[in-house]
Amino acid sequence: MRATVIHGPHDVRLEQVPDPTIQLPTDALVRVVAACVCGSDLWAYRGIHATKEPRRIGHEFVGVVEAVGADVAGVKPGDFVVAPFTISDNTCVHCRNGVQTSCVHGGSWGAVNDDGLFADGGQGEYVRVPYADGTLVVAPGVPSDELLPGVLTCSDVMGTGHHAARSARVGAGSTVVVVGDGAVGLCAVIASKRLGAERIVVMSRNPARQALATRFGATDLVAERGEEGVAHVLDLLDGVGADSALECVGTKESMKTALDIARPGGLVGFVGVPAGGPELSVGQMFGTNVGVVGGVAPVRSYIPGLLEDVWSGAIEPGLVFDLTLPLDEVGEAYAAMDERRAIKSMLLP
Amino acid sequence: MRATVIHGPHDVRLEQVPDPTIQLPTDALVRVVAACVCGSDLWAYRGIHATKEPRRIGHEFVGVVEAVGADVAGVKPGDFVVAPFTISDNTCVHCRNGVQTSCVHGGSWGAVNDDGLFADGGQGEYVRVPYADGTLVVAPGVPSDELLPGVLTCSDVMGTGHHAARSARVGAGSTVVVVGDGAVGLCAVIASKRLGAERIVVMSRNPARQALATRFGATDLVAERGEEGVAHVLDLLDGVGADSALECVGTKESMKTALDIARPGGLVGFVGVPAGGPELSVGQMFGTNVGVVGGVAPVRSYIPGLLEDVWSGAIEPGLVFDLTLPLDEVGEAYAAMDERRAIKSMLLP
Repeated sequence: MRATVIHGPHDVRLEQVPDPTIQLPTDALVRVVAACVCGSDLWAYRGIHATKEPRRIGHEFVGVVEAVGADVAGVKPGDFVVAPFTISDNTCVHCRNGVQTSCVHGGSWGAVNDDGLFADGGQGEYVRVPYADGTLVVAPGVPSDELLPGVLTCSDVMGTGHHAARSARVGAGSTVVVVGDGAVGLCAVIASKRLGAERIVVMSRNPARQALATRFGATDLVAERGEEGVAHVLDLLDGVGADSALECVGTKESMKTALDIARPGGLVGFVGVPAGGPELSVGQMFGTNVGVVGGVAPVRSYIPGLLEDVWSGAIEPGLVFDLTLPLDEVGEAYAAMDERRAIKSMLLP
Repeated sequence: MRATVIHGPHDVRLEQVPDPTIQLPTDALVRVVAACVCGSDLWAYRGIHATKEPRRIGHEFVGVVEAVGADVAGVKPGDFVVAPFTISDNTCVHCRNGVQTSCVHGGSWGAVNDDGLFADGGQGEYVRVPYADGTLVVAPGVPSDELLPGVLTCSDVMGTGHHAARSARVGAGSTVVVVGDGAVGLCAVIASKRLGAERIVVMSRNPARQALATRFGATDLVAERGEEGVAHVLDLLDGVGADSALECVGTKESMKTALDIARPGGLVGFVGVPAGGPELSVGQMFGTNVGVVGGVAPVRSYIPGLLEDVWSGAIEPGLVFDLTLPLDEVGEAYAAMDERRAIKSMLLP
């Protein structure tokens, strides 16, 4: 089959690789119908994370089950499935606690996992899925072309934006500020609206993203960054600050902004992969009682509920895809996101 | 009147100072019946916080109202009152959010506050109380000698331990680890038990404090610290970790321990005044989804509920006082805590 391999900075290639097969009785084999490029894939693409040797890449995909192992009970050939961006058995104590990203048998796409076997990356034609019953979520049917992008967001960005909102306890009447206007930030707007937030301020200076944020439920837009951005947000919020500040970037500056705009006793929900150093100002947190909660999103927990709302059309996270390409143009899919010509690229094998 | 003045390291003195009077219509004048020394007072006593010039000290007290200003409606002469360790109007947006420590008119004992006037420290005979309606909580009556210490803990340590537990969302069936066996840590044990925790592991190597922790509801004791302590705790908790880790010390090491013993998706509730540097490992938090919530405790919120349970005898936080001295032995009250001969010292003017 063909699958995406990253060789180094700005060098991703679609290559011929071995066809995956069922290897364990808990496996499923999935034909990928749609995949996409994640903002975090750009770390390797940009060379921020070194690529020591060529490796498979991609961790967001949906598709149709082609075959299952003897022990798989919840998924059958022909099912249309959503794969979360991490593998989990969904039965261990951490999974039962809703933290499938800490599954004791958990693993990653495009890597050798705890079963000693390789699980394919998502940006390819087929994927061997470990712990198929625990990992995959079956959709109500085969999505239409219109629904497909939204279904695909359940694999990562919609669940990740939702995790930011859940971590910061967004609820009915909440005042929310979203830091970051990437796909995750935009999905955090959808999630906040869905959870009942009354006021949703989005920090964005990109007109296209501002428009999407507004469509998703943003009530206010703030174009400034840093101290000016904080001042503008606080001005909008009567000097009080936000109940929930959703940090969807991962830099030191974005975390500082989130801490600065949360009200005393508020929460920062953070899902941006930390890229800007390991520090959080515990002194500031102590004085203001602003808590920091979040991390790598256990989207497996969230897929059923989110997928239902995507399916019904209640939410439209698929709009974050503004570029769709065939899989053999995967290089352009990366380049467009890297150069900020696209918010998020969808790949159709 | 006589009140405590700190002059520098290991130098606290009971001195003659001006008698306080009602100065604003929102003031009350309180005759102190009992006060105490806080672990955080030791920072100045030990010279960790510099004392640039002699200043009044003490922020935990209970007493009887002697007089009130014309605008005071909720407190009257003769009332027995509990003063939280910070001043608040209890009407501003932050107070309404339950974060009285961030009150827009908030202030501190022993300092000049936003009204431009001096509020006495708690370790003296009388205190001018600003925003009396917002700051003070009236007790059901004059407490007996047996009840007095417990009532006094509502001024700070019981509310602070409770804040750690609340911040970490301790509830029915929770597995809790308390890091720190000082008065706040011991009160966090009481709070956890009161909130329904099923398992309460206390990290303590002091036999007297271990005994008190057990009396308060600790189910397990861990004497080791650092990596050994973490390993022992995790061993007790089936390798999973705690739903709620209550950080009641404030050092870098204690925060690290709390982060290391919380289960994936768990919470660290922190109330230890940060003394060990401003860093929190956001990378660790990201990977484990362990959130960090807490800060300077808004005990004003908690006093009514806690006081009720102290009054009924349902909880006995007063047992954290293992030394009671007349006010003129305030120097010894500090020295005994500094030298760890006492957990907490009560002062009777």
